[in-house]
Order: sequence, then structure tokens, then C-alpha cells
Amino acid sequence: MLRLQDLSKAVVETEYAVRGPIVARARTLEAAGREITYCNIGNPQSLGQQPLSYVRQVLALCECPELMGAPGAARLFPQDAIATARRVLEGSQHGLGAYSESRGMRFVCEAVADFIRARDGVEASADAVYLTDGASKGVQTVLRLVVAGPDDGVMIPIPQYPLYSATLTLYGARQVGYHLDEAHDWQLGRPLLERSLAQARAQGVRTRAICVINPGNPTGSVLDPGNVAMVLDFAREHDLVVLADEVYQDNVYAAGRRFTSFAKVLHERGMRDVSLFSFHSVSKGYLGECGHRGGYFEHRNVPPDVVAQLTKLQSVNLCANTPGQVVTYLLVRPPREGEPSHARYVRERDGILTALRERAQLVAEGLNRVPGIRCNEVAGAMYAFPSIELPPGRTDEEYCMALLEAKGICVVAGSGFGQQPGTAHFRTTILPPTEKIARVVEAIADFHRTWR
Amino acid sequence: MLRLQDLSKAVVETEYAVRGPIVARARTLEAAGREITYCNIGNPQSLGQQPLSYVRQVLALCECPELMGAPGAARLFPQDAIATARRVLEGSQHGLGAYSESRGMRFVCEAVADFIRARDGVEASADAVYLTDGASKGVQTVLRLVVAGPDDGVMIPIPQYPLYSATLTLYGARQVGYHLDEAHDWQLGRPLLERSLAQARAQGVRTRAICVINPGNPTGSVLDPGNVAMVLDFAREHDLVVLADEVYQDNVYAAGRRFTSFAKVLHERGMRDVSLFSFHSVSKGYLGECGHRGGYFEHRNVPPDVVAQLTKLQSVNLCANTPGQVVTYLLVRPPREGEPSHARYVRERDGILTALRERAQLVAEGLNRVPGIRCNEVAGAMYAFPSIELPPGRTDEEYCMALLEAKGICVVAGSGFGQQPGTAHFRTTILPPTEKIARVVEAIADFHRTWR
Repeated sequence: MLRLQDLSKAVVETEYAVRGPIVARARTLEAAGREITYCNIGNPQSLGQQPLSYVRQVLALCECPELMGAPGAARLFPQDAIATARRVLEGSQHGLGAYSESRGMRFVCEAVADFIRARDGVEASADAVYLTDGASKGVQTVLRLVVAGPDDGVMIPIPQYPLYSATLTLYGARQVGYHLDEAHDWQLGRPLLERSLAQARAQGVRTRAICVINPGNPTGSVLDPGNVAMVLDFAREHDLVVLADEVYQDNVYAAGRRFTSFAKVLHERGMRDVSLFSFHSVSKGYLGECGHRGGYFEHRNVPPDVVAQLTKLQSVNLCANTPGQVVTYLLVRPPREGEPSHARYVRERDGILTALRERAQLVAEGLNRVPGIRCNEVAGAMYAFPSIELPPGRTDEEYCMALLEAKGICVVAGSGFGQQPGTAHFRTTILPPTEKIARVVEAIADFHRTWR
Repeated sequence: MLRLQDLSKAVVETEYAVRGPIVARARTLEAAGREITYCNIGNPQSLGQQPLSYVRQVLALCECPELMGAPGAARLFPQDAIATARRVLEGSQHGLGAYSESRGMRFVCEAVADFIRARDGVEASADAVYLTDGASKGVQTVLRLVVAGPDDGVMIPIPQYPLYSATLTLYGARQVGYHLDEAHDWQLGRPLLERSLAQARAQGVRTRAICVINPGNPTGSVLDPGNVAMVLDFAREHDLVVLADEVYQDNVYAAGRRFTSFAKVLHERGMRDVSLFSFHSVSKGYLGECGHRGGYFEHRNVPPDVVAQLTKLQSVNLCANTPGQVVTYLLVRPPREGEPSHARYVRERDGILTALRERAQLVAEGLNRVPGIRCNEVAGAMYAFPSIELPPGRTDEEYCMALLEAKGICVVAGSGFGQQPGTAHFRTTILPPTEKIARVVEAIADFHRTWR
């Protein structure tokens, strides 16, 4: 019999709060008939966001190519959806039912390189693109590559998305946390990075890499080009690999703010000695296709012998799921102006982004009206991470569990993401429908006023 | 910069021959215009096998639900495909675009439990079913659970499917190989198991589990109920967890042979003290939906506190891709007699299985006609693993590379799977179309006669 005491320490110590005990309790309540609003996870379509029609039309045609020749197909599908499906099937060589190359279908990697070139005005190569089952799988693969032993550490933000802490724990590696500055909109500061690295070194940790999440999860902050350059300079000086989690690059709401990719700044500064891995996903942005598990990573300044190891690791997993690869293709190659689906695509996309922008503001402003809750601007991504004042001796985990019991609202305690000792937070998504989110904020306000 | 010498020994030492240097060379030749027959990997649809129409119809409807209401939908889709798609969308709660529960959609887990109950006449619970991105991901998760330290080992067959060796190497755990008896149709023998375990113990290895692949990959053998019972008795006596890789359960060709599941024998013998994990996949059988990365595992006799750890590990990966979950549902819940799609489904299924049976025989008989090649009956699965006599001093890797260069046929050397020292083999799939497979066998025969 397999016994708990036989499992590895790494497995037992791994924590993943986003789907932890509070969520388990929420499911129990739901099964018993309670209405639960799941604000614990960035899962837009579970909260009513509609998929983009074009994405689903192309997928349907790729799954069932006989539809293309069916009488009436032209009435059911726009001509460009049919043309795209033909391009996908041709590019895939064998359709969606065959394993692709381990790195992903070549034509999709090429489309990703085109996308990066157009987005950033930099060179990009399909050879440096790997398609993955969502960004998480890519992060896990790259972390596998950069940590080699129990004294190896990786810098991760505090607060962070717990994929990073969970994966490092599972690999038996060390987390080197660096604090984001809550008092200044969660910005990154070089002194904080230096301090964290020095502390790790003093503890015998060999720090190998730094992870940056931009736009920030759970913080909602957006880095400016100067911040990105600072991180790259820091990484160069200390010989660190950079992992840039850029899955929220299309989710920037604050006026005047723009997403800046690490690839762009790396290129502009002509840096050839900092290894960079950038991650993107179909789960966020305006597609919100979480269930399809699509994504990619692109590497820069990684020597060929290391790339060969990466390819080998990917090959043990055979390949990313092919529908997810197709959605990745559609993410980077949407309908263009003049194509029949363009107008509908733009309307649907802008509808989603406008709603998210409204909700980002509603949540932050609403929470800031509650005495004892302080929330930075949600400049990007899909979350607010307010700090909360708690009665003496109480924890944010207790708070979140009580909020669930009292109001049926499922959020995640700040302790699951990391926070300054002595502070308390929770993370909530901004994803519920606009008419509902006001009620969510109201319910939190009501709960906060009365909970002891 | 990330350098090769900084990577972990485990990463660098991991090998995965099925997609190794021979396959890389094949792709290079193909890119230069050579026609290559890929017999290296069980990828049926890449070799012309057609997907089952019903599977793809349901997927198309689930991806694009507006098709169901479209005028003319009833002409395009059988009524039961539409009904099934409705059931899937209802069961999924939020469609294919949302993350599901980490363990997979509940209604699919329930359908899997129904399937096991009907297949084996045993009790089965949806609570013990986890949906995965293909069987490989499930195997990786379970191996993660059973190996806790560098002295922990897992018994794997020799020859074996290299997923097992690659994963154990990557986890820094020990491979405890047990030989299959080539002279007796690759059967399992208790003395060989005992010997291998004793040798491992003498080397300080704490053996935790035994993996069995049935029907066998690469061997093509099929275990009888007595073999299965013997493995379970052995596991009980030595306190080993059993991993039963049963992804080829629908691929049994030899007259009078039947697939026997480990779950069935475990249940019939009333064993409550052997932890069992059984794996299944949509990639093999007659679906051949490799690209969709769908599969499941079921556990038995695993204590609740260990199950909780399993669920946690799954949750770090968020969830298996949802189209793959749908294909898993269709695998275990095909059209029934009386439903409109039943006849076409049966015709397509039987066409595939009949062709595979023919090819299994063609390959084994054809290879056995070549002096210097000996091949056991391909009783099941999708591969032949013939032994080959080589000129002195030559290896099967050289042989396979030369076969590729000479004939454009891509097979994998026996050394990638493990074999008795002093013997040489290769693995070829039986998947090329029947008219082509005769040419493949002929080309191998011609090559074998002349290669020095």
C-alpha cells in the first residue's frame, strides 16, 4: 500500500492555494445547493465570458473537416474561417488527431515568430518557439532546466502566482522571494532585488534565475520599459536567467499604460549575454480559452546545446494538445482588416476588454471605499490584491473561509501568494459580470464591516 | 547565460529514443525532399488512419455550440451526436473554454467508472478517476508520488516504453529492470521478477513499485489472467505499488487472446492491500486521437491522505485539456445499439481493428521470412520488436540509422527500450497502410540482406 509517510517531502510540502482548501470547501457548499461566486481563479468563461466566435468556428472546422464541403457550409461559416481551417489542416500535415512535432506544429511556431516581430519590432525565429499545454507547462519545463540541485534557487516576486512556489518546492529547489513595493503600486525596485539576492547568498543559495510576472499576478501592476531594463541589467550583472511571464500582455487597463515585453527591451539594449524565456497563453487576454490549454514560450540567448536539452524534455511529453496549438495560432494570427470575420472579431474582443477595464476600476474603487481595505489600482491582469486589516490574532485564511461561508464568495488568502509579514490580503478576480461584480464588492464590504 | 554544465545531471542523462537522433535525422532528410515512412511512434493518424466520424462531430458541436441551432444542422449531424454534445456542454457546466476541476469533469469521471464496471464486472468509483493529458501525464504524476528519494526504485520491463526510464531518470530515481522472456513470447515470469528485485535490494535500492505494460509496448505480448494475478501476488508480497499501463487494451489481435485488466483480477482476488493505478488513453485503440492528449487513470486501494496529495499535484497543472476530456468521454461512452450513429461507428471501428490485425500478422510473418530476423507474434498493441543478427561490432543504433538512410524507413533501435546484453532489436509500428506495410517489410528484408 502507498502510505503518506512514504511520499517525498517535496510532494507533501508543495502548496497550491488557488485550488486549495477554500476552493474544496466552496465545492462542498455548492454541491449542497449554495450559490458560489468563484473569484479564486482567472477562469473567464466559467464566469460568463463568451468565446470569440471565430476561434470556435475554426476549431469546429478543423475537428470535423467534412463540414467544409457540406452543403450550406458557406452559410454556417465565414469564408475566412474556412480558409484558416484549411491552412491549419495543411500546416498540421495530419490534422488534429496526430501527435505533432514535440516543439509544436511548425507553421504555428512561425506565426508566433511573426507575431513577436510585429508586436516588438525585433527579430524573432520560429526555431526559438515551443508550443505548450498552457503557459504553466512551459514554466515547469524551463524551471526544470534552470535548477540543478537542492541549493539552487530562483527569485520569485512576493506576492507571486503560486505555480512558481509549487514547482520549485516540487523540484526540491529554493525560493528566493523579492518583495514588490505595495506602497508604490507594487513596483519593482533594484535595492529590493539586490537585498533578496544577497540574503539568499548568505544562506548558501546559488540563485540561478529571476521570474517576473508582467502584468502582475496577483498584483495587477504593469511594468514600464525602465523597470524591464532594470531587471535585465540586474540579471546580467548576477548571471541570472530571466523568466518573463507575460500571459496578461493584452490585459492592460490603466490610462496611458502599455505592455512592454522583455524581448523588446533585451533586443533594444543589444544584450546577447542574458538568457530569456518569455511565456504567453491563450487562457487570458480576451480569448480566455483556459480549457484549451494552449500557450508558447520563446527563448533568446540560449546556447544550442541547452536548446537540445529543452527539446528532449519536451519530447518526453510527446507534444502539446493540438486544439490548443490551433488556438495559439489564432491568438497570434487573428482576422485582419478586410477579412470577413474582422468586424465581428473586433466587436467581440473590444466588448470583453472594455468590460474588464470597467470591472478593474469597479473592484479597486469599491474595495477602497471600505474602511480597513486598501487596494492599489488594477492597472492590468485580472486580479485585485487588496490589503485588509484584521482583528488581532486572526489570519487572512480564516477571513477568506468565513467570507465564503457568509457570502458564498470564493477568494484566495494572501498567504497563498506570499506577503510582507504582519500584513494580510486576499486575491479576487475581476471577472464576474459587471452587474454581479458590484454585488460581490458590496458583499465583501458588508462582510468586512462585521467579521470579528 | 544558461550553460550546459549548469544543468542537472538528471536532465542531461534523460533519454527518449522514440523521438531521438534517428527521428531528428529523418526530419532533416524529409525537409530535403526524401519520402520518409515514420514507423518510430504509435501515431496512427499520421499514417493515414481516419478519425471516427462520431468523435469529430461531437467535438465540432462542443467547440461551436451555435452549430446545433443552425438551419440544416440536422442534415449535417446525426441526432445522437447533437444529443451527446448537449450532454457534454451541460456536464462541463461552462463549455470547453473554462478550466475544469483539476481531476477532470465530473460527468466524464462517472462515465469512466461506468465503463470499468461494464468492462470488468467490478465496482468502480468516479472519485478514483483522474483525467489527464494523455496517459503519459498520468504516469508521470503517479511516479512522482511513488518515488521519494534517490535510492527509491521502480521495476520496469526490459524492453520497456522509454517514458518510464526517462521519467525515472528525470526524477533522479532508480530503474529496476525485469526481463521479459523473448523465447516465450515475452511472457512475465515470477523468477525473473524475484531475481531483479533481489539484485536491486543488494544494490541498496528501495523498490517502491512495479510497472507493467499490457498489451506490451514494444513487445506486442498480451498477459493472461494468470500472469496478472502473479504480478499482483508478487506486488503484495513485496509491498509494491502496481502501475498498469493498459493503453492498448483494445488492440488485441491474436486468436483466442483477450485483454485482462489488473483492476478485474485485483477485485476478483479480493485484494485490499495492493495499491493499483491503471492508465488508459484516447491515443491508441481504434480512436488513435494522439493529438488530442486525452486519457485517465483509476486508482484502487490508495488511502485518502495519499489521494489528497495526488489531487494537489494535479491541481498545480490546473486541468487536462477539455477537448481531450471530451474524447475520453467518447472513448468510454460510444454510440449504443439503436442510436443513429451506431452502425457507422461500428463499421469504422471494425475497419480499423481488422486492418491492424492484418498488419500485425503481415509484419511478424514478413520479418520472420528474413534470415537473421526473428519476430514473436504481435498478439497486441501496435509494434513488432524483432531481434536482429548484426555483423560483428555493429550496433542496432547504427543499423536503424543506416536503414533510414538507405530506405527512408524510420524505426527505433532496441537499445532505446532496453534488451538482454548481446542482443539487438528494433521497434517498428504496424501502422502504415496495409498496401504500404508489405513494402516496408520488403525494404527491411532487402536492407537486412545487404547491410554490413
